[in-house]
Amino acid sequence: MLNIDKNSAVPVYEQIYRQLKEQIIDGELPSGSRLSATRTLAADYHISRNTVLTAYQQLESEGFIYSKVGSGFYVEDLPEIDNSAARETIQSETEDEDHDVRYDFRYGNIEPNIYGTRSFRKALKDALSELELKTSLSDSDPRGYLSLRQALAEHLLKVRGVVASVDQIIITCGHHYSLKMISEFFPREEYRFIMEEPGHQDTREVFLSTGYHIDPIRLDENGIQVNRLSRTRKALAYVTPSHQFPLGYILPFSRRIKLLEWAQETDSYIIEDDYDSELRYKERPIPSLHSLDRNDRVIYLGSFSKSLSPDLRISYIVFPRKMKIEQLAVHPLLNSSSPALIQLTLEKYLRSGEYLKRINQVRNSFRRKHNLIIDFLKKNYPEQIKIYGSGGGTHFILELDTKMSQKQLIERFKKNDVGVYPTKGFWADQSQSHENRIMIGYAGIPEDQIEEYLERLKTVIDEVLC
Amino acid sequence: MLNIDKNSAVPVYEQIYRQLKEQIIDGELPSGSRLSATRTLAADYHISRNTVLTAYQQLESEGFIYSKVGSGFYVEDLPEIDNSAARETIQSETEDEDHDVRYDFRYGNIEPNIYGTRSFRKALKDALSELELKTSLSDSDPRGYLSLRQALAEHLLKVRGVVASVDQIIITCGHHYSLKMISEFFPREEYRFIMEEPGHQDTREVFLSTGYHIDPIRLDENGIQVNRLSRTRKALAYVTPSHQFPLGYILPFSRRIKLLEWAQETDSYIIEDDYDSELRYKERPIPSLHSLDRNDRVIYLGSFSKSLSPDLRISYIVFPRKMKIEQLAVHPLLNSSSPALIQLTLEKYLRSGEYLKRINQVRNSFRRKHNLIIDFLKKNYPEQIKIYGSGGGTHFILELDTKMSQKQLIERFKKNDVGVYPTKGFWADQSQSHENRIMIGYAGIPEDQIEEYLERLKTVIDEVLC
Repeated sequence: MLNIDKNSAVPVYEQIYRQLKEQIIDGELPSGSRLSATRTLAADYHISRNTVLTAYQQLESEGFIYSKVGSGFYVEDLPEIDNSAARETIQSETEDEDHDVRYDFRYGNIEPNIYGTRSFRKALKDALSELELKTSLSDSDPRGYLSLRQALAEHLLKVRGVVASVDQIIITCGHHYSLKMISEFFPREEYRFIMEEPGHQDTREVFLSTGYHIDPIRLDENGIQVNRLSRTRKALAYVTPSHQFPLGYILPFSRRIKLLEWAQETDSYIIEDDYDSELRYKERPIPSLHSLDRNDRVIYLGSFSKSLSPDLRISYIVFPRKMKIEQLAVHPLLNSSSPALIQLTLEKYLRSGEYLKRINQVRNSFRRKHNLIIDFLKKNYPEQIKIYGSGGGTHFILELDTKMSQKQLIERFKKNDVGVYPTKGFWADQSQSHENRIMIGYAGIPEDQIEEYLERLKTVIDEVLC
Repeated sequence: MLNIDKNSAVPVYEQIYRQLKEQIIDGELPSGSRLSATRTLAADYHISRNTVLTAYQQLESEGFIYSKVGSGFYVEDLPEIDNSAARETIQSETEDEDHDVRYDFRYGNIEPNIYGTRSFRKALKDALSELELKTSLSDSDPRGYLSLRQALAEHLLKVRGVVASVDQIIITCGHHYSLKMISEFFPREEYRFIMEEPGHQDTREVFLSTGYHIDPIRLDENGIQVNRLSRTRKALAYVTPSHQFPLGYILPFSRRIKLLEWAQETDSYIIEDDYDSELRYKERPIPSLHSLDRNDRVIYLGSFSKSLSPDLRISYIVFPRKMKIEQLAVHPLLNSSSPALIQLTLEKYLRSGEYLKRINQVRNSFRRKHNLIIDFLKKNYPEQIKIYGSGGGTHFILELDTKMSQKQLIERFKKNDVGVYPTKGFWADQSQSHENRIMIGYAGIPEDQIEEYLERLKTVIDEVLC
């Protein structure tokens, strides 16, 4: 018995399909039973035979019934179906994201906004125009668009002294992804992983998750102590020579040369993370380690997170010339995964010359914030604080004369609606970290609100100092 | 001795910096030697003392010189520098990408183009407007934008019967990435990986690369043979129930129920890859396996590659309710990595109702191409070919009556400027694959050129048939 409503928005064939399916699942139509002939059903309900047939064919496709030539349709032999468990409905569960603080000194945020600028919109428009001309949409080159890699190679040569052919460059969808790619490309049984201590927490986690053993090398006041590097063959050494993360040291020239020699002698590779090299506030940018490398031993990492926006998710790797990047490209994970629209927009932006202007704009803005905040702190607390890693980038480490633990400190700031961040995770050996050091990022503070941010910061610092 | 040109475009401080740096590297200024006092140098060249100081400070930052208070600047003790090896310059090496064929039947390509459509541009514009209002640019939620996950949850409920809260959904930058995420989340020591044989080649490679053992289960004419699944506890079973990849079978209802029961009984999870479920050309779309699951055992995968564009690189995972997705989100790789602009554009597109229209448009276009090509082949080769997996999706498998090997076949097509693709890689045990079967994708063929494509296909088929 079917309920057919010819005036319903639901097509008749679908009404038949749904009701029969329900009857089969409920057992009203038991296994093996024969369905009414299409002709009969059509006549009974004054509908076309084709309509019935469409419903039957759908049921057949899904495996509820089968047909016997010349004999009709029969219900399949179906297993018992547990229909008792009521289906939960969608609950709009509350997101337990961190409650946003009003005064956020989060590392990684940046301001000014790129999306409203004429130059970015022009590049986006040009990218769209190029894409709409494609007759067939396809996945792009797993290494990234050739035209973008060309534009990037030219930019890197000009600005960072990095000599790279397009065949060495892979575009990725973010810094994590770049690191993950590298960690997957090298056989972890063969290579040790060396990194700065303290160093970039996420890098450590990525390589740990891929199964590497981590060998931390302590910093002194000039950065990584190259003479402490083991002479055992084959290592990957992750360094941030232009602006050590998180402490801000610049690796001296003599150590750079020794580091490169070490790599050549031990058949190792250096991963140079050049994450914010354009952002120096007193000096010119520090030349890249890659530009000194004569032996093809440097894997160079860069990103547009600090200069354009972190939410564009676009980074890149320059692999050594000797590596067979064609082999890389067939690894299932070694796929740039950056959308065509984003890649082409960046290409147009680089070629238009607007990117260099943007870097200047961003650097000037960050420098003003940097100077305001550093001067403010030094003036108000000439004795009770120390600052590490100022002079470049988007953050510094603030050491406070306090007995509170890092956790207590951060909680206290948060209670006052101020976001400051822990430094413990930068250490492989967390017992070496200082409880009284916190991380302050300033690049994301809107320039017209910086006074307000500083006053609020001061209120809490006054509370926590000894 | 310095060469200072006050009329040069290069700032004077930079001229000093460059020349001194060169003299230090070349050994003309040996280690330990004292640089001219800033006052002297300034007087000698009639420049300001500040200019000299800026140059000296840059050299100091980079570790070429050091200062002694009250005594001046001295050259650092630098290691020998090998300057002999001439630096190679950028070579514009030829890309050895596959020579593009004129008539490409590549799986994964799609047409019609989305980028020029008014609805997509509207969504993009709205996304831009939202982004430009942000005071501070930051990395977005690693699970993906909440608003997109909400829009997607509503869409999945309506169209695929998938009941999911936003907390279960993660947006990813492509299908590979989704698979990689899953492969990293489950401990590979604990879970076996089961997949269809033949099955999706890239899936096998991703799980192999993460260190899983692969357990292939042979298909019969209804898809995966559920009764062959081992009863050992804890497995991940990758299936394509709505349209088996690559052979096109629809998993019957009875097997779906048994598969779900098996997962519950063995404490296993089913990875349902619903990669092209909207694309049925005779029936309605087949309901998802997820919609039948009462025990929270299905991980549901979807993508916008077939409906919008493969180069948007946007996919998603619906995790089971019981999994702590908050834990997932802190894993360094478990980061959606899809740019904010792309996510928000998709969200606007979904909410505008244009996505459903687009699916209809795409389905109608693919159906027309499907019917033309299938009819053409059946009419011309009533006896000498077999077709597997037609009726839905964007490809089928073509079996030819020929003695040629798959490699020879594909070469022959390529010589005639026709791209057809191998099927061998779909088998874990390649000896089981058929030499005379090739893969034909048709979704990317421009509709107005399809006759030309078919004629050319026929020319080559005539050549290779026995």
